[in-house]
Amino acid sequence: MIRVVILGQGMVACHLMVGVERIRRGEIGKYGIPLAKFKLPYDVDDIVFIASYDVDPAKVGKTVYEVCKSLVSDTLPVPETLKSIIVREGIHQGSLHGLVENPLGLERKYGLWEAVERIVDEWKKLRPDVFVNIITTEPAKPFYTIEKLREAIKNGSRDVSASHVYAYAAALYAMDVGKGIAFINAIPSPLANDPAVVELFEETNSIVLGDDGATGATPLTADLLEHMAERNRGVEFVVQFNIGGNTDFLSLTIPERNKMKEYTKSSIVEDILGYNPPTYIKPTGYLEPLGDKKYVAMHLEYITFNELRDSLFISARINDSPALAGLLVDLIRLGKIAVEKGYKGTIYEINAFYMKKPGPINAKSVAKIVAYYKLIDWLKRNNVIIQ
Amino acid sequence: MIRVVILGQGMVACHLMVGVERIRRGEIGKYGIPLAKFKLPYDVDDIVFIASYDVDPAKVGKTVYEVCKSLVSDTLPVPETLKSIIVREGIHQGSLHGLVENPLGLERKYGLWEAVERIVDEWKKLRPDVFVNIITTEPAKPFYTIEKLREAIKNGSRDVSASHVYAYAAALYAMDVGKGIAFINAIPSPLANDPAVVELFEETNSIVLGDDGATGATPLTADLLEHMAERNRGVEFVVQFNIGGNTDFLSLTIPERNKMKEYTKSSIVEDILGYNPPTYIKPTGYLEPLGDKKYVAMHLEYITFNELRDSLFISARINDSPALAGLLVDLIRLGKIAVEKGYKGTIYEINAFYMKKPGPINAKSVAKIVAYYKLIDWLKRNNVIIQ
Amino acid sequence: MIRVVILGQGMVACHLMVGVERIRRGEIGKYGIPLAKFKLPYDVDDIVFIASYDVDPAKVGKTVYEVCKSLVSDTLPVPETLKSIIVREGIHQGSLHGLVENPLGLERKYGLWEAVERIVDEWKKLRPDVFVNIITTEPAKPFYTIEKLREAIKNGSRDVSASHVYAYAAALYAMDVGKGIAFINAIPSPLANDPAVVELFEETNSIVLGDDGATGATPLTADLLEHMAERNRGVEFVVQFNIGGNTDFLSLTIPERNKMKEYTKSSIVEDILGYNPPTYIKPTGYLEPLGDKKYVAMHLEYITFNELRDSLFISARINDSPALAGLLVDLIRLGKIAVEKGYKGTIYEINAFYMKKPGPINAKSVAKIVAYYKLIDWLKRNNVIIQ
Amino acid sequence: MIRVVILGQGMVACHLMVGVERIRRGEIGKYGIPLAKFKLPYDVDDIVFIASYDVDPAKVGKTVYEVCKSLVSDTLPVPETLKSIIVREGIHQGSLHGLVENPLGLERKYGLWEAVERIVDEWKKLRPDVFVNIITTEPAKPFYTIEKLREAIKNGSRDVSASHVYAYAAALYAMDVGKGIAFINAIPSPLANDPAVVELFEETNSIVLGDDGATGATPLTADLLEHMAERNRGVEFVVQFNIGGNTDFLSLTIPERNKMKEYTKSSIVEDILGYNPPTYIKPTGYLEPLGDKKYVAMHLEYITFNELRDSLFISARINDSPALAGLLVDLIRLGKIAVEKGYKGTIYEINAFYMKKPGPINAKSVAKIVAYYKLIDWLKRNNVIIQ
Repeated sequence: MIRVVILGQGMVACHLMVGVERIRRGEIGKYGIPLAKFKLPYDVDDIVFIASYDVDPAKVGKTVYEVCKSLVSDTLPVPETLKSIIVREGIHQGSLHGLVENPLGLERKYGLWEAVERIVDEWKKLRPDVFVNIITTEPAKPFYTIEKLREAIKNGSRDVSASHVYAYAAALYAMDVGKGIAFINAIPSPLANDPAVVELFEETNSIVLGDDGATGATPLTADLLEHMAERNRGVEFVVQFNIGGNTDFLSLTIPERNKMKEYTKSSIVEDILGYNPPTYIKPTGYLEPLGDKKYVAMHLEYITFNELRDSLFISARINDSPALAGLLVDLIRLGKIAVEKGYKGTIYEINAFYMKKPGPINAKSVAKIVAYYKLIDWLKRNNVIIQ
Repeated sequence: MIRVVILGQGMVACHLMVGVERIRRGEIGKYGIPLAKFKLPYDVDDIVFIASYDVDPAKVGKTVYEVCKSLVSDTLPVPETLKSIIVREGIHQGSLHGLVENPLGLERKYGLWEAVERIVDEWKKLRPDVFVNIITTEPAKPFYTIEKLREAIKNGSRDVSASHVYAYAAALYAMDVGKGIAFINAIPSPLANDPAVVELFEETNSIVLGDDGATGATPLTADLLEHMAERNRGVEFVVQFNIGGNTDFLSLTIPERNKMKEYTKSSIVEDILGYNPPTYIKPTGYLEPLGDKKYVAMHLEYITFNELRDSLFISARINDSPALAGLLVDLIRLGKIAVEKGYKGTIYEINAFYMKKPGPINAKSVAKIVAYYKLIDWLKRNNVIIQ
Repeated sequence: MIRVVILGQGMVACHLMVGVERIRRGEIGKYGIPLAKFKLPYDVDDIVFIASYDVDPAKVGKTVYEVCKSLVSDTLPVPETLKSIIVREGIHQGSLHGLVENPLGLERKYGLWEAVERIVDEWKKLRPDVFVNIITTEPAKPFYTIEKLREAIKNGSRDVSASHVYAYAAALYAMDVGKGIAFINAIPSPLANDPAVVELFEETNSIVLGDDGATGATPLTADLLEHMAERNRGVEFVVQFNIGGNTDFLSLTIPERNKMKEYTKSSIVEDILGYNPPTYIKPTGYLEPLGDKKYVAMHLEYITFNELRDSLFISARINDSPALAGLLVDLIRLGKIAVEKGYKGTIYEINAFYMKKPGPINAKSVAKIVAYYKLIDWLKRNNVIIQ
Repeated sequence: MIRVVILGQGMVACHLMVGVERIRRGEIGKYGIPLAKFKLPYDVDDIVFIASYDVDPAKVGKTVYEVCKSLVSDTLPVPETLKSIIVREGIHQGSLHGLVENPLGLERKYGLWEAVERIVDEWKKLRPDVFVNIITTEPAKPFYTIEKLREAIKNGSRDVSASHVYAYAAALYAMDVGKGIAFINAIPSPLANDPAVVELFEETNSIVLGDDGATGATPLTADLLEHMAERNRGVEFVVQFNIGGNTDFLSLTIPERNKMKEYTKSSIVEDILGYNPPTYIKPTGYLEPLGDKKYVAMHLEYITFNELRDSLFISARINDSPALAGLLVDLIRLGKIAVEKGYKGTIYEINAFYMKKPGPINAKSVAKIVAYYKLIDWLKRNNVIIQ
């Protein structure tokens, strides 16, 4: 059994919790879970959600069932078993400015340091193994040293992202109970890319996996560019538009959040091609009726043999949240397994496939297809899968 | 220096010969040549074309310069150096029925066996190292044993494809001069997939690479399917239309030729996904003004986590002939290198990346991205590239 | 009230009958019915289906409810009121060869002439006002004179299409009861384009509207070409692929049926542009999982000012049957109204908007947007709509 | 002969001047000129460019030949006859802020009022019939009364757009010479939509045609929406991305300019559909290698009969400047003809087809296909074309 705490009860959390429950009941297949075809030490059934945190006053105090009913019931049946989990009040560090009116937040009532202590106390009772960070995209920056991170939290600074606070709390909890944990960071905030966080997790025999779950159009773009690179085609430019109607896209209409995404999206191009053609790759807008099924439009041109030009146009409608939820089913299991196998800090081989900005800091992006085979190798070497 | 004989002076041959010459002069970059970024024992400059064969009365007796002027001068400058090669009369075995009126063909004048002897005599004077088979797509089937193939040629049977005849002649030539050669088969006729041909080449210390050069939409489809398979997405169907205005598409409007293509195109889907969703993948039609730049339209849908459905649409305009010509620049060099390193028969690691239907027979199709890294491994193991 | 007989209980019939019933109940809006925004003498509620004919042994004798349950219940709720209509045995004239095994058909039991008489007798009891011909696409050709048509039916010739037989029977019925009827031909068989049929309907104070309901990609292509023509852009070529998974696409895999479609689809290009660029416009294939929601891929290029070239690519997923059903809701009403207003023969102004091959014979195709405004004018001139 | 003054020597001006010259020489066809297929009182040959104004220090004082060489010689041959026109210094009113460093501008040297007087004096010598305003998109707003406009110019206010200044000068010139002129406003600044300007032109027997030439994706979107509206389909949303690499797109990266475009683009949707579905229609970005051939991606979904949903995706590469230049060839001729026929103020029937935001103020946008037939009617009623 893997005991999981959810941080951020949004659409991804609902897809994850609903999907795992439906798989447990045999209602649906294991589509969208990359390693579903392999036998792992933990199966999907072994995942148990024990708590969920949020700061939206419309969610805190409600059951996960109620929250998911309002978020995903247009596309999914929500199982009644989710009535047993009540959304708890977490922290936000101002990250919902402009998105949620009057957010709650333990740090408001108790100050940041006491808020952390209260959360750690809750976890000591709940005994989680894995934390999944899927709060809304927020402005965030790395701290580089444990000291600076600790000091900022002690001082109650507003410059510490909510993700950093949660990760710090998880490390404290791990230290207190003397047992390593896994922290999965599926949003762009730099955790696996912050040496401060990675070092902190090493010290507590824990693992942080991140950053920014590799879903949507970016992994597809990465694999297309690899396809071009292998044939030595000269990519002249890449345009990739993304528009959706979920909270994530709404939050990206606020400029500083958009920049968080742009950063991770453009870095892949040069890493894969070896040069840097002009690109326009970014979340472009918000349009409510698209819902969670975003529209992606892509166009690129490249130089082929004899310097002639080819043109490629892609149009897609892609469900955003379930794609990430499917990856999380693997990451939760791999996080737990890795801790048990004695790994600590972060693990590039896992991050490289599942993350847009794989930690540790300065690690190279590779095409996901390449990363996949390196992941499979790593899993075999560590006897996680037998084939 | 690598001495090359061209079989089939069509658009691909012109792109290959013009492109190599322009690279030699430094007029253009090495785009579209997959291994151009590595240092190989032979560079592009080392390729020398010494002869070319065709059966079209409008081509035989003309210079390669004249033929290429009429075929590709709308998109390429044709170098005057190509005036030094005169197109020779080859054989066709009826393969141009419905495409070229009154084709020539040595087998008509001399019977098939004497035609083969005459060609082998020419080659003994020309001393080629590598043969490149890029005749028009033709109906063809494997012979399985050397005896059956030899007998059919001796009897002058019309059931032997022109590709088989040329391959057989190349093996005879290799035996006569006591030196292995490389035969590159870039069309669908089964040579590397015919045990008869592979065995014949083993006996003569030669190499056959094939079949059906992996250009156009099929490798892209393969890599897209691999992308889906790695995420355990359930592909529901794949549609891929292709329409172009070159001779290859014209020839495919004749039903039995179209079947040759359909065979190699559909086999990849199951090999990569592990199951066989309904597909419609085939050359769809001929439309003259599209010229060599074909239009490809693709659509697929897949099941993601929580059994929701995503949709993908691709539209592309792709230059057909230069894409294949770029691969041939590698294949010519790899063929020569492999013979020198003592390889014989066929080499799966090379075929898997460069061919749609990689020999030997019953070899599995894999995504090209996977095949690429296996190729690079093979090249390193054999000290062909150092990195 | 308009009493309607359905000929061919396929997907279009089910969409029509289910949709009208759901509108009657106020369950859905009047989307897809072009004239829904105008007040006509007959509203959608006035349409009453009184009988349905088919020859598929899996349908005849079943209720329309049962048939529609098996055909459209994946996308639509089928109202129980459709249990009151039982599918009757019609005629097929061999038109289901290769599609339905052992089709029934009154002409088999009674010979063609007696079959017609029996059907007419049934209609005399049922008293229909409007007939809707939506049988499967069949090979068919015009007869030009009433005599030839009558003789062929009297002789029980297999060269008379089922559509011609039904239209002839409808005219006989109209004559017998001394009251004009409307016959809507939504399939490619030439009825409104056959002077024999038009004359026959004139003689019986009746109206035939046809041929081939203008749904799917063709009207869109027509409007796009008109867009180009109005700007004097030089269209260089048009490619339009269509693939679907319903019976209509399955039937088109049989070559002679495909030709019926190709004919009506290509004729529009020259009529609109005034010249005839190379085109490839045809139903391309059948792929079961696409169902009734076909995939359309379109590509065209045109010359703009200063002789530069622009490129356009369209990808679409379009529900085939409901689009036609929506048009039929108008056509049923317009047919009845036109007969009441004393029109007879056929009416170009109606056909031009609703049909791909508008009758009478040799009438010009115009862009649908142009035809629409001519239709509105006609409706106003005839006081059908007041605005 | 029609004597034309160009305001803004950018890419559109170059395409217009080069194209007219090439047509005069018989080098190219009259593609992209909507009325080319009709016989008008003035032919393309009758257009003579007599002067050109700009404020870019890299252009002023150069010949039009030199400027066009640097702007369009990658796609067009520039005729040497364009050496005879020297680019004169105009005014800019700060409109190039952020785009051109240290722009010139007569208003800087002389103050705005004197600058206007100097320009009017030049025109009195040049004797133009038609002015074409194709300066870079600028922030601008209407003045509503002649008095406010005159006062603002007299006071040298920076709130008067360069377009307003040029239009005012043209009216002064018309008054002084006692002969009506035509002013074509092909950019978004409200002139034909400003009652002040329209009234001013009425008083001087002149005509202003505008605003914002209807090229690119917007007219296509308008016609697609009309196609949907005529079938009573319920459009759920419209997404339209535009990205290009010319100065116009560069200028739109400056937020206040982008708003000028968004305004005219979104207004068409409600005018045509009669309701206002959520839309995201705007110039999205700038990417240099796309050049003048912009990439347009469009996606819309609509409700069809039985409330099922259809999806449409469009990808296009469209040459921006020549499309507008082609329209200007008509507008120059129509402007001259209309003045001669005694028209004054503005003419909705012309604006409705050629402009995105047709004046006068509060005039409705209609689908361009509808506008086209109204234009043709108007031309016939006024004996401009005979058919």
